[in-house]
Amino acid sequence: MNYRMLLYLLSVILLIEAAFLLAPLLVAMIYGESVIPFLITVGALIVISLPGILQKPKNTKIYAKEGFVTVAASWLLMSLFGALPFTLSGAIPNYADAFFETCSGFSTTGASILRVIEGLPKGVLFWRSFTHWIGGMGVLVFMLAILPQGGHAIYLLRAEVPGPTKGKLVPKLRHTAIILYGIYIVLTVTEIIALLIAGLPLYDSLVTSFGTAGTGGFSVLNNSIAGYNNPAAEWIIGAFMLIFGINFNLFFFIIIGKIKDVLKSEELRVYLSMAVISVAVICVQTYKMSSGIEECIRNAFFQTTSIISTSGFSTVDFNLWPGLTKTILVLLMFTGSCAGSTAGGVKMSRIIIVFKNTVREIRHMLHPRSVNTVHMDGEPVPEETVRSAVNYIALYLAVLIVSVLLVSIDGFSFETNFTGTLACLNNIGPGLGDVGPAGNYAGYSIFSKIILSFDMLFGRLEIMPMIILLSPVTWRKK
Amino acid sequence: MNYRMLLYLLSVILLIEAAFLLAPLLVAMIYGESVIPFLITVGALIVISLPGILQKPKNTKIYAKEGFVTVAASWLLMSLFGALPFTLSGAIPNYADAFFETCSGFSTTGASILRVIEGLPKGVLFWRSFTHWIGGMGVLVFMLAILPQGGHAIYLLRAEVPGPTKGKLVPKLRHTAIILYGIYIVLTVTEIIALLIAGLPLYDSLVTSFGTAGTGGFSVLNNSIAGYNNPAAEWIIGAFMLIFGINFNLFFFIIIGKIKDVLKSEELRVYLSMAVISVAVICVQTYKMSSGIEECIRNAFFQTTSIISTSGFSTVDFNLWPGLTKTILVLLMFTGSCAGSTAGGVKMSRIIIVFKNTVREIRHMLHPRSVNTVHMDGEPVPEETVRSAVNYIALYLAVLIVSVLLVSIDGFSFETNFTGTLACLNNIGPGLGDVGPAGNYAGYSIFSKIILSFDMLFGRLEIMPMIILLSPVTWRKK
Repeated sequence: MNYRMLLYLLSVILLIEAAFLLAPLLVAMIYGESVIPFLITVGALIVISLPGILQKPKNTKIYAKEGFVTVAASWLLMSLFGALPFTLSGAIPNYADAFFETCSGFSTTGASILRVIEGLPKGVLFWRSFTHWIGGMGVLVFMLAILPQGGHAIYLLRAEVPGPTKGKLVPKLRHTAIILYGIYIVLTVTEIIALLIAGLPLYDSLVTSFGTAGTGGFSVLNNSIAGYNNPAAEWIIGAFMLIFGINFNLFFFIIIGKIKDVLKSEELRVYLSMAVISVAVICVQTYKMSSGIEECIRNAFFQTTSIISTSGFSTVDFNLWPGLTKTILVLLMFTGSCAGSTAGGVKMSRIIIVFKNTVREIRHMLHPRSVNTVHMDGEPVPEETVRSAVNYIALYLAVLIVSVLLVSIDGFSFETNFTGTLACLNNIGPGLGDVGPAGNYAGYSIFSKIILSFDMLFGRLEIMPMIILLSPVTWRKK
Repeated sequence: MNYRMLLYLLSVILLIEAAFLLAPLLVAMIYGESVIPFLITVGALIVISLPGILQKPKNTKIYAKEGFVTVAASWLLMSLFGALPFTLSGAIPNYADAFFETCSGFSTTGASILRVIEGLPKGVLFWRSFTHWIGGMGVLVFMLAILPQGGHAIYLLRAEVPGPTKGKLVPKLRHTAIILYGIYIVLTVTEIIALLIAGLPLYDSLVTSFGTAGTGGFSVLNNSIAGYNNPAAEWIIGAFMLIFGINFNLFFFIIIGKIKDVLKSEELRVYLSMAVISVAVICVQTYKMSSGIEECIRNAFFQTTSIISTSGFSTVDFNLWPGLTKTILVLLMFTGSCAGSTAGGVKMSRIIIVFKNTVREIRHMLHPRSVNTVHMDGEPVPEETVRSAVNYIALYLAVLIVSVLLVSIDGFSFETNFTGTLACLNNIGPGLGDVGPAGNYAGYSIFSKIILSFDMLFGRLEIMPMIILLSPVTWRKK
């Protein structure tokens, strides 16, 4: 383990967090609120990170292990420090609650322990939504975009970007990171402008767009997006949730004119098909509950895109919807959207690979001597990728089962415990039952909140980095 | 596809079913009930099977494909014919309901659509419980035990015996089948005698032992085993449920004096450890609800062994137990017990292999050049077995998710749909919510009942044979 490089990278990350905190600090100043909580946090981050940054190590080489540990430790430290403004401002007095809320923010989950949101300081709520935006594309990717990197920084990108396969868009890693953040910023700004046109105030347009871009789901209203009572805004947010669930590589292909590669994407086709089918079935099931065809389609579209993109905004309490609709939503919670997007979940491409592998296994059982390769987008998928996708499902299930067991100690219903854990692990936010759109996670014990906080980080980083960070084997000296 | 051999084997199986039906026919005669339903069914089975049996094919060779198809088709046909006595006797007027009940019987699930059981003809209820006993060890294994087999009959054993690895105990396949059935019969008779000593009537001792041996769970009382109000019987049944969840190979090792091999079994140790831990946690959680330490341990022991062995007998309504206890039961529903037992579920050994494989994958990520092998009971596990165990989890999840979706159309709660499907797919019987120990499956639509019936057969045969039977590719001519 290259400890010096690890210390250096973590210090850089904490300094970047300090820089990000200047945005809510500015908002607090504009609204005449106390800036002390932000000043203290920024000060603490600078004091802690400066010593590490001043001693840049000579050996900057890192490998897979350092990549995983750096990314996991970064996210944990960012959440621990990012929670300070909530507690220092008195918005969330209990630090464990604030940690939950910050993990929920950075991991773009959007699960909240706040019973009442309206009335909290604007600066604090800005920070809460801004964590979604930071967490969406990833802070390590941001670092790669702004700083020239030495040896093997690809391991950082691999550990932070979700999906079964990760690669560079262009030969230079730094350029890849700049392109990804460029697309991210352009899309976010487009949504902000669209929401302004739809009539939302500037502040609300900003925080809602942060929540959409990161597929997070924190809102500044108690009733989430329903509180705006603005159908146009609901359509806009719904559409952008769907867009932010798409693999960012495809946007890059569009920019450089490779439209064919976009159309060839099986993941995109499956993703859009699942969204369309879900909207259709939900419409049929909920038509009687709505006051017209437009409202029916709008609600079905909004809820589907919200869950499939693992955002978690809501315009209706889908906990009250009929059985099949709820099961479809739980299924979409599980799948999530495309790899390489800002969304959570198991990811469509992984599910496609596992499905194709299963079909291959059935073929193999019928014709033991046949040799087949899994193909995707017309290309053969390396066996290593297939194996890792199938293993991911097993690992994912193990984390889910253990978490549900631990959270169950609190005595909520099975539906609440199961969908709540699923909603945290898949970075969605609301589940069903007591943690449905009309409920929140405030009722859970501190123990369960810590478990769920870790689930959110496990989900965002796709499990492996967190396991490697927490595994004693990683830290054992040879 | 060797169609002639397929026809021959299916005919033999149906004739064997006719022979098995003589037992309930005898019971009906003893109790002075109508024997007509049984006579008609036996007659139909003989008429249908005779032509196929009289033309024994010259080419008796079968391969993997024929093995899967024969086993899956046998179970489907046996269930279709086995349902006749229920409908003909008027006990279950609707044939779809009777099919559900028979699939539930043969697959040793024990899920019932009957709201009231007491008062139904003794012969019919005897048949209902007897299907558990037949399904437990498997009818193809029975056929292998009584008939000398030609080429490649091992494919039949492989397709019917559950678990990630299947082999012969002794060089001769027929002797293996005889040994398995011998152990099965001895254990069943031992339980019958124990229950007689505990004070149960002969009839009840017989049907309850059939249900325990097959890890089925059908009872002849409305309140299941609770109806006997007999603590000694509860301890006996609980102990035998645990025993029938153990790999039968281990009993064979005990007989031939290889005690070391038994103690070496990791699967047995994990199985027993999980049972002990579950009993302990449930005791702590339900102590306040029971009227004494003996009752508390007895109920926890009975419910744990009932669920982990996927039997589904009940002495209390565990749907009323607290959160963690219910989650533990759902977890045990998922795991099931040992491979090579009469129980359902994913099987302990598969879970151990998948767990060890996951640990290996984490090691591999940290040290990409390291090569590790998964070991079990001190022996390396072939990569083929590891791969198939991991794939089984994916396949299992796919069947579970699709089934829950289809069953959800009926509009029950998510808890009911999820645990009900899980309870059918894992051959347990009762789930939580509306299909808990105090409920039943009568409320589901015919469509859902058929889906759940197939889930039961999918679960008993471990998915692959049924998929191969139902796949159009299997029947396509080259």
